[in-house]
Amino acid sequence: MPERQKEVYGAKRKGKNGVSRKAFQDFYPDELSWCYGCGRLNEHGLRIKSFWDGEESVAYYTPEPYHIAIPGYVYGGLIASLIDCHSTGTAAAAVYREEGREIGSEPLLRFVTASLHVDYLRPVRFGLPLEVRGKVKEIKGRKVVMSARVIVEKEICALGEVVAVRLPEDMKPEGMI
Amino acid sequence: MPERQKEVYGAKRKGKNGVSRKAFQDFYPDELSWCYGCGRLNEHGLRIKSFWDGEESVAYYTPEPYHIAIPGYVYGGLIASLIDCHSTGTAAAAVYREEGREIGSEPLLRFVTASLHVDYLRPVRFGLPLEVRGKVKEIKGRKVVMSARVIVEKEICALGEVVAVRLPEDMKPEGMI
Repeated sequence: MPERQKEVYGAKRKGKNGVSRKAFQDFYPDELSWCYGCGRLNEHGLRIKSFWDGEESVAYYTPEPYHIAIPGYVYGGLIASLIDCHSTGTAAAAVYREEGREIGSEPLLRFVTASLHVDYLRPVRFGLPLEVRGKVKEIKGRKVVMSARVIVEKEICALGEVVAVRLPEDMKPEGMI
Repeated sequence: MPERQKEVYGAKRKGKNGVSRKAFQDFYPDELSWCYGCGRLNEHGLRIKSFWDGEESVAYYTPEPYHIAIPGYVYGGLIASLIDCHSTGTAAAAVYREEGREIGSEPLLRFVTASLHVDYLRPVRFGLPLEVRGKVKEIKGRKVVMSARVIVEKEICALGEVVAVRLPEDMKPEGMI
């Protein structure tokens, strides 16, 4: 992890008392922690980590050397994946917050993607950490609509919108609503 | 590669005379063949291959064991990536065709993604090959609008729309328009 990212990432992980915070995804139960984008147990995956930063959520990710499209530029499918997993993670955290519950408390919440839209505003030069910011647009029934933006060196490079829905009944392990 | 996919894939790769066909992506010049989704030289990537099948284009991909979301189901970010690269590849092939030129003839054409939309209609069970089909909706100036669908065992699991644009001037190596 580049030094700059380490600093930013470290700062974001600390709460007001300086104690390291857990990411939204760290609260997913083991059986739901294998997602290629955000599962902490998927050693081949991206393992992104999302946190609250005031009303918004934030995640950082530094692409691997092979995450390129044209040499020197980051692969758009990676950007879509980051927006996707950051948004579903935030959707769960937002519903816990709305219900006045601790993240990870039972019954557990987990969201999947119903639709994903990404506008690629400019090519993203390879070699810098990507900042993914999420905002809740709407919580309605089993659905959360999220907007997201991907920022590199203070420039917005991509805008996203995700409709996240609670995990369908037939995909759930026991203990989840 | 599962046997069933091998067969389908093999059949699609053969032209009418039984000679193996090259995929759209096989015509990309080496310096543009590193894309994580479709670059034949990116050994960490998906290396998807797209072909004409009448008026539509088709690509097949069998997810790796780690390409999961919830265990037993395919990762949505992978599906978005397949739609993305299959559509930009088809966009280039479609413009060659419209101009009455052989794919890969100079000046070379390469498209990147301006926007990507995916509707996930149903969860995709892991373990089966995914069929990605693309259709050109519109060619206008430097832009090609593509629709795509992802099919598993004859069921449409996801619908996509991609706006592809010709590679911007400042990202181009020499020899391309």
